[in-house]
Amino acid sequence: MTLSFESAIQAFDPALPVAVGLSGGADSTALLVACARRWPGQVRAFHVHHGLQAAADGFEAHCRALCGRLGVPLLVSRVNARNAAGQSPEDAARQARYGAFEALLAESSDIRSIALAQHADDQVETILLALSRGAGVAGLAAMPAQWERAAVQWHRPLLAVAGPEIRRWLVEQGVQWVEDPSNSDERYTRNRIRKHLLAALEQTFAQFRDTFSRSAANAAQAAQLLEELAQMDLQSVGNPPGIKALQGLSRARQANVLRHWLRHSHATTPSAAQLAQLLDQIAACTTCGHRIHLKTGRGYIQRNGDVLDWYN
Amino acid sequence: MTLSFESAIQAFDPALPVAVGLSGGADSTALLVACARRWPGQVRAFHVHHGLQAAADGFEAHCRALCGRLGVPLLVSRVNARNAAGQSPEDAARQARYGAFEALLAESSDIRSIALAQHADDQVETILLALSRGAGVAGLAAMPAQWERAAVQWHRPLLAVAGPEIRRWLVEQGVQWVEDPSNSDERYTRNRIRKHLLAALEQTFAQFRDTFSRSAANAAQAAQLLEELAQMDLQSVGNPPGIKALQGLSRARQANVLRHWLRHSHATTPSAAQLAQLLDQIAACTTCGHRIHLKTGRGYIQRNGDVLDWYN
Repeated sequence: MTLSFESAIQAFDPALPVAVGLSGGADSTALLVACARRWPGQVRAFHVHHGLQAAADGFEAHCRALCGRLGVPLLVSRVNARNAAGQSPEDAARQARYGAFEALLAESSDIRSIALAQHADDQVETILLALSRGAGVAGLAAMPAQWERAAVQWHRPLLAVAGPEIRRWLVEQGVQWVEDPSNSDERYTRNRIRKHLLAALEQTFAQFRDTFSRSAANAAQAAQLLEELAQMDLQSVGNPPGIKALQGLSRARQANVLRHWLRHSHATTPSAAQLAQLLDQIAACTTCGHRIHLKTGRGYIQRNGDVLDWYN
Repeated sequence: MTLSFESAIQAFDPALPVAVGLSGGADSTALLVACARRWPGQVRAFHVHHGLQAAADGFEAHCRALCGRLGVPLLVSRVNARNAAGQSPEDAARQARYGAFEALLAESSDIRSIALAQHADDQVETILLALSRGAGVAGLAAMPAQWERAAVQWHRPLLAVAGPEIRRWLVEQGVQWVEDPSNSDERYTRNRIRKHLLAALEQTFAQFRDTFSRSAANAAQAAQLLEELAQMDLQSVGNPPGIKALQGLSRARQANVLRHWLRHSHATTPSAAQLAQLLDQIAACTTCGHRIHLKTGRGYIQRNGDVLDWYN
């Protein structure tokens, strides 16, 4: 069930003091206003100034004015997020934002939780983005409603609130916000989703925010179980993995444990084609003389006696 | 990568003779024509006459004329698929169709495989339907490209072909087909998806057929692994499941093994809320006197000494 903005705020119960990630857009403006009213003197705002964006100064000015009116201390961090090769501009901005939040946390050691303003429409967009890159269950799990990182609780209290409901509340309260001009830039996949897909989803399934989120929660649970299974299987096949022990597992379990091993022990991810080739080689490896030497992620896997080694 | 119609047919390698499920619509008409050309004398057509549908006689007439021209034997089975309470008309029709195919198979014992004409757009629709009911990974896995059932190989050779590509081929070949009038009936969720969502997806992600299918394949692999994990865990907790042994598993694994136990041993499925309540009760069950008695699916779970029993 999607929630009204008020009931989502009512249900939110963070450890105080809480910092609200404030971009100046509608969603984070609403979240800050609601938190500042509910916990006077216990709220801070963290603003990340994206230096490369033309509108960044306008956002900062809005945040300063808003925080001044609310009596909320504002901390600003400046980042210049250029995307690296193979990274989307959105990913670069997101990573820079997390880095900036952690830098701000280091400056304000009393903060016990952080609230981010992503809402149900953002969650649906994230699921569709995952489908647009053929993601597995970890990607389809989309955004968690809460987690712990750097000894701080992170929350998304609006994750079950529809985007339009947040704007309705702001208008009702007479609160101003800044419209991000990059939101209409169709070079960003997320903006194309918002413009073309969400309206079509609304027409097709009235309950799409609820049901997509339920599928994401199911995918998150599946991802956790695959991780547990991979840890168990890595213990039984050994690290580095023994070929005979791998052969005793189903092909799907071999794939799961090898992906886990490569990610955790070697910080690399094989392509689907590389993994399929590796599994074929493992199945064919029945004689002492059988050689395995395959490009895998950033390096190579080769047979070394009874086990598989990775090097780069 | 989506395939051209010709290359999908080229890659199709069924055990012969093969029966093609023929509705008379564009997709199955194309599949039958292509198979009949490729394996003369080795192809049959199975047509299911949906008695309740006004257009059913027209479909059968088209199929008879087409099979006559191609020299392909046609077998027809009549079904009256009324949906039961809680079942969608599409589900009722699909189940009736499978039953009819199996009846036709029993009449033609030489058939070694069956080809169905679902294509890449159908696969995307199936994924979106799964999201529209909040499905887990088994639902997000959508339709398999092949499987075995009733000692026959079932294939979907067009699963990587875009819907419009099939019609392009038919037009190029000058082959007629029947347009199903119910395809424009927006009471069917699938038709709403086709009308409103696929065009929006095309505008948003050019590669959506590929990437959605890749996510579905990832979900299928996850579903298989969850099933393997549940089987292992059921062996270790026992059947009926021991409470102490369950408590030794993570909450996600308890949920996975209990769902599996209820489905396989008792043919019932708990709601998400029932399962959450059950897990809370298991966590709280630390004294001999603790009672558990909960509605679960079509029946009840209750504590019986050290184990959980189900009855209805």
